Amino acid sequence: MSVVEKAIGLLNHFSTARPEIGLSEFCRLARRDKATTYRHLTALEAVGLVEQNPTTRAYRIGPAALRLAELREATVPRRDGVLQPLATLADRTGESAHVSVLSGSSLHSLAVHESTRHSTRVVIDVAILPLHATASGISAVAFGAPELRDAALANMNRFTDFTPTTPEALDAAVAEARRTGISTSDSGFEAGVHGMAAPIYDQSGALAGAVAVASVATRMTAEQEFTNRTALVEAARQITRNWGGTVPAVVEAAWADTLTPMPREDAAR
Amino acid sequence: MSVVEKAIGLLNHFSTARPEIGLSEFCRLARRDKATTYRHLTALEAVGLVEQNPTTRAYRIGPAALRLAELREATVPRRDGVLQPLATLADRTGESAHVSVLSGSSLHSLAVHESTRHSTRVVIDVAILPLHATASGISAVAFGAPELRDAALANMNRFTDFTPTTPEALDAAVAEARRTGISTSDSGFEAGVHGMAAPIYDQSGALAGAVAVASVATRMTAEQEFTNRTALVEAARQITRNWGGTVPAVVEAAWADTLTPMPREDAAR
Repeated sequence: MSVVEKAIGLLNHFSTARPEIGLSEFCRLARRDKATTYRHLTALEAVGLVEQNPTTRAYRIGPAALRLAELREATVPRRDGVLQPLATLADRTGESAHVSVLSGSSLHSLAVHESTRHSTRVVIDVAILPLHATASGISAVAFGAPELRDAALANMNRFTDFTPTTPEALDAAVAEARRTGISTSDSGFEAGVHGMAAPIYDQSGALAGAVAVASVATRMTAEQEFTNRTALVEAARQITRNWGGTVPAVVEAAWADTLTPMPREDAAR
Repeated sequence: MSVVEKAIGLLNHFSTARPEIGLSEFCRLARRDKATTYRHLTALEAVGLVEQNPTTRAYRIGPAALRLAELREATVPRRDGVLQPLATLADRTGESAHVSVLSGSSLHSLAVHESTRHSTRVVIDVAILPLHATASGISAVAFGAPELRDAALANMNRFTDFTPTTPEALDAAVAEARRTGISTSDSGFEAGVHGMAAPIYDQSGALAGAVAVASVATRMTAEQEFTNRTALVEAARQITRNWGGTVPAVVEAAWADTLTPMPREDAAR
């Protein structure tokens, strides 16, 4: 690691749980001597990336971070941050890829990318995705705030014969999503559409929305499902990174299963 | 300048006008050779402070900026960023210091700090400051979006005999504010209260509000006015810095006059 990387890496020790760090604590956290740590902090301070709390003399993130974030937002707005991952997702799966963002307890469609591989494909033209009946919605209930379950239960329209319309059916889908990190809705919103979704996160640390693949149900095989899962995890990580977020450890752990290659006999099943 | 400072300093070349910078352009801007510049950019990239546009390979601000800004906001919320400067302002002037923030075309009171130097002082208990009748409001019209003048003209209540109630009177006060960088309202809102204000800016680059001193009018002398001006400029710079903003060059130029010490005979006048 270069000296520059080491110096900037000091910023990674800040968190909501540890918003201010004194010099001695910094030395301990970074396992560096006082002179080096102080020199690095002084350099970061000179460019406004850290500052000292005038009262305690402890270091905290400086105001330059606000300007950099503003520039980032102007250069790569949230929508731009999903275009590349969505295109790759559609390309890898051969199906329609889709991102939605959570606003309050509604999941709003943000961007769609259709694959041209097949002449039949799923066209996604819904502005607000029902929480109980879509893979994206179930992902939001599984990984978002507890209020989202209440919001889902409050609005359990039956769209098809397969829509979950009881708390038990919803909870089963949510439990499966939590176990694997990937939610599924087979014809729950529209007959013949098989949806799979993964949660995405932004800089706030909270759930920001979902990335999904909507496949033509008759094309689904165990192999296609595995491809979708793998590509979804990749896309969710990429979008989360582009949005300045971090995937929670518990979700990464659930994805680990998802990414284990299937035994051949399973694939042929 | 240390190597770390030089590396992080590369970030300062990004702006809304120049959101993406290629390697060769970076070398030219930073006046450094390609190997050094590349090494610095690679270090910044490793921590997510820059990233390459996958299409053009040019560098742009990375997603880590979003997380840092979120942490900064959580650690030093906007209100906290004004407390120290307001206390200093009240202390230096011996009068009531005050910050308001612009939201749409309304100026909302954010924080007040009263000095204890005198037994009489101005108590500020108004939630929304009238644009035409207060020093803060005139500062907003002078340095904010053109719509603010329309908003001021649409609501020209007469509060005292000194309230500007014609477009000409408003424009004269605004012109004076633009010339000096400091706006004044002598008993325009409340008889016996002399207000002076300076504009403050945030990370968006646009006017964010005003910092003001409200003096008991009978205490105003040329010397007090000079003290107020000087302390206001300091406070406005400090708050702007805390909010991740930059004072526009045109305002700094106007302040330069304000900060020139008065000749002694003027002070004694």
